[in-house]
Amino acid sequence: MSERGDGMAADIAEQPEVYSRLLEPAHADPIAQIAARIAANPPRHIVFTARGTSDHAALYGAYLTEIRLGIPAGLASPSAVTVFGARPDLRDALVIGVSQSGGSADLVEVVRVARESGAQTLAITNNPSSPLAGAAELHIDVAAGHERAVAATKTYTAELLALLLLIEGVRGGDGRPAAEEREAIGRLPQLAAGTLSDDTPVQLAPRYRFAGRVVTTGRGYAYPTSRETALKLMETSYLAALAFSGADLLHGPLAMADPDVPVIAVVGGGPGGDSMREVLARLGERRADVVAVGPADTAGAALRIATPDVDERYAPLLDILPLQRLAMALALARGENPDAPRGLNKVTVTR
Amino acid sequence: MSERGDGMAADIAEQPEVYSRLLEPAHADPIAQIAARIAANPPRHIVFTARGTSDHAALYGAYLTEIRLGIPAGLASPSAVTVFGARPDLRDALVIGVSQSGGSADLVEVVRVARESGAQTLAITNNPSSPLAGAAELHIDVAAGHERAVAATKTYTAELLALLLLIEGVRGGDGRPAAEEREAIGRLPQLAAGTLSDDTPVQLAPRYRFAGRVVTTGRGYAYPTSRETALKLMETSYLAALAFSGADLLHGPLAMADPDVPVIAVVGGGPGGDSMREVLARLGERRADVVAVGPADTAGAALRIATPDVDERYAPLLDILPLQRLAMALALARGENPDAPRGLNKVTVTR
Repeated sequence: MSERGDGMAADIAEQPEVYSRLLEPAHADPIAQIAARIAANPPRHIVFTARGTSDHAALYGAYLTEIRLGIPAGLASPSAVTVFGARPDLRDALVIGVSQSGGSADLVEVVRVARESGAQTLAITNNPSSPLAGAAELHIDVAAGHERAVAATKTYTAELLALLLLIEGVRGGDGRPAAEEREAIGRLPQLAAGTLSDDTPVQLAPRYRFAGRVVTTGRGYAYPTSRETALKLMETSYLAALAFSGADLLHGPLAMADPDVPVIAVVGGGPGGDSMREVLARLGERRADVVAVGPADTAGAALRIATPDVDERYAPLLDILPLQRLAMALALARGENPDAPRGLNKVTVTR
Repeated sequence: MSERGDGMAADIAEQPEVYSRLLEPAHADPIAQIAARIAANPPRHIVFTARGTSDHAALYGAYLTEIRLGIPAGLASPSAVTVFGARPDLRDALVIGVSQSGGSADLVEVVRVARESGAQTLAITNNPSSPLAGAAELHIDVAAGHERAVAATKTYTAELLALLLLIEGVRGGDGRPAAEEREAIGRLPQLAAGTLSDDTPVQLAPRYRFAGRVVTTGRGYAYPTSRETALKLMETSYLAALAFSGADLLHGPLAMADPDVPVIAVVGGGPGGDSMREVLARLGERRADVVAVGPADTAGAALRIATPDVDERYAPLLDILPLQRLAMALALARGENPDAPRGLNKVTVTR
């Protein structure tokens, strides 16, 4: 790479193309086949297991599963299995491991143990020849291509889209999302390109040049976006970035918010966004500095990053895009190299 | 209260007595009856739902459930049900709502919906006449008495003990923990009193007088302790306190650690503590300022808060005690009133 940040910039810019590619039959058809197989024999509950950025994709998957399929879903703590030897009886479960590299030893172990105990297992990775893909009965390749920067961007959104296709496919029954869904999903590449063409996040970045901490918040589908934003800010700009669901923010951490704490609030155009109104009012009382990310003007927020007005279940694939750009621009403004954060490697091996 | 912090100090000091009270037949017997009932008809999976401090107790319950019972467990996102109208099919599940006040409208709604869908439901609260206790089929009163300070301390550890008695009781089969467990649990009040008599945390507090952020970390059973420590520091001292499982810390946030970032690492005397060694080595490379909380000297940690050497599944009931004192002493050192943090109420109503 010639310049600092060129790698991350290229990864970010490629996302509309990554969406288009994953929607092509070569990639969407295998996902539909897996969805049809799951729909034919639906699990009693779904357990996701993941780390870091992929954990936020898994969280999105858990919301989709509960809301769209009516199947209970949760995120597993790998250490219960890998460190403490737990052997949960997962016969009625589908266990989904999500990992861009597919190389985390602890996730491989969780999926292996789950498969032995009779669970249906699925790996969602960006590497079909990875250990995680090999350990699971089923595998979805998110086909995001080589990621240049250490901080994950396009592999995250590719995981989101794969999960959306999978879960809407299970809902559809035959493995394909319903016609209306297919149409809405088909618009995402173009909406992503439009969102990335707006330079507001780059203009906002210098505001945070001297911030020591940032609070990110959102509810429901927007909560994974908040968490992923916080992680990107930690990884690239070394900010103390704290993510809270809007409701949890009111249970304690709100005390921390004052006019010196910048808040990035993800506020959708549906019930999740509506439920953030009280949170924003409380932040306003505390005179926090709020930037709202979403399709509508938001009372209590001084500034806004506008994103497309879509159903909240699609918003995570769009709302994160300007926030990735914000994190990258901020890292550059702080003299850091977002392509290669200190102390991190691309594949993190944890046991 | 006559002095700032008197309320929180009294709540903290009362914990050994709270443990003793909960172990008396008047409180332990009803828990054993509920445990026997669950053991007679064990659920296929257990879903916890909670907010704030109680969410950390729920996380402890989830680890115990998976490791000690081999039953898959997870934490539910209330917003899926309350905001997005999800109606997960919970016929084979036990849904446990944990809340000191029992007054959070969203938890009541989650438990009500779960009960309607055929789940077994249990509320664990400090208020038997609360809406949550009324909504659930079964109720455990943690009997911690009136909590004086807004920041929860004794209700948290009482919830931990109630969950321990419940889950070990289910494991026992007849609702009572096995003899060996009963003996170990019976020692907790005295161990708690001994732990609280060590003033190390109060002596350490001034070190953090000018810290803007703190990272807390732990794995497995110690992870809830790390999260609860972070919340106490946020609530009482308005620090940006970031909690990570040891493994997740390596997936990104490690970049944030430098010699200016204080780290509080909870390192048990068993497999969870062993699995923290690599994390501490990596923090050492980054020259982070590490205080280790646990029974053994820890390479890479400059300072230590010693806690009793017990099986890691009991450690959360002891390790949090000095950390509550640290949070309180730090709040006083910073000129804050830990009994009444700005912006918070005792009962947080979220929907």
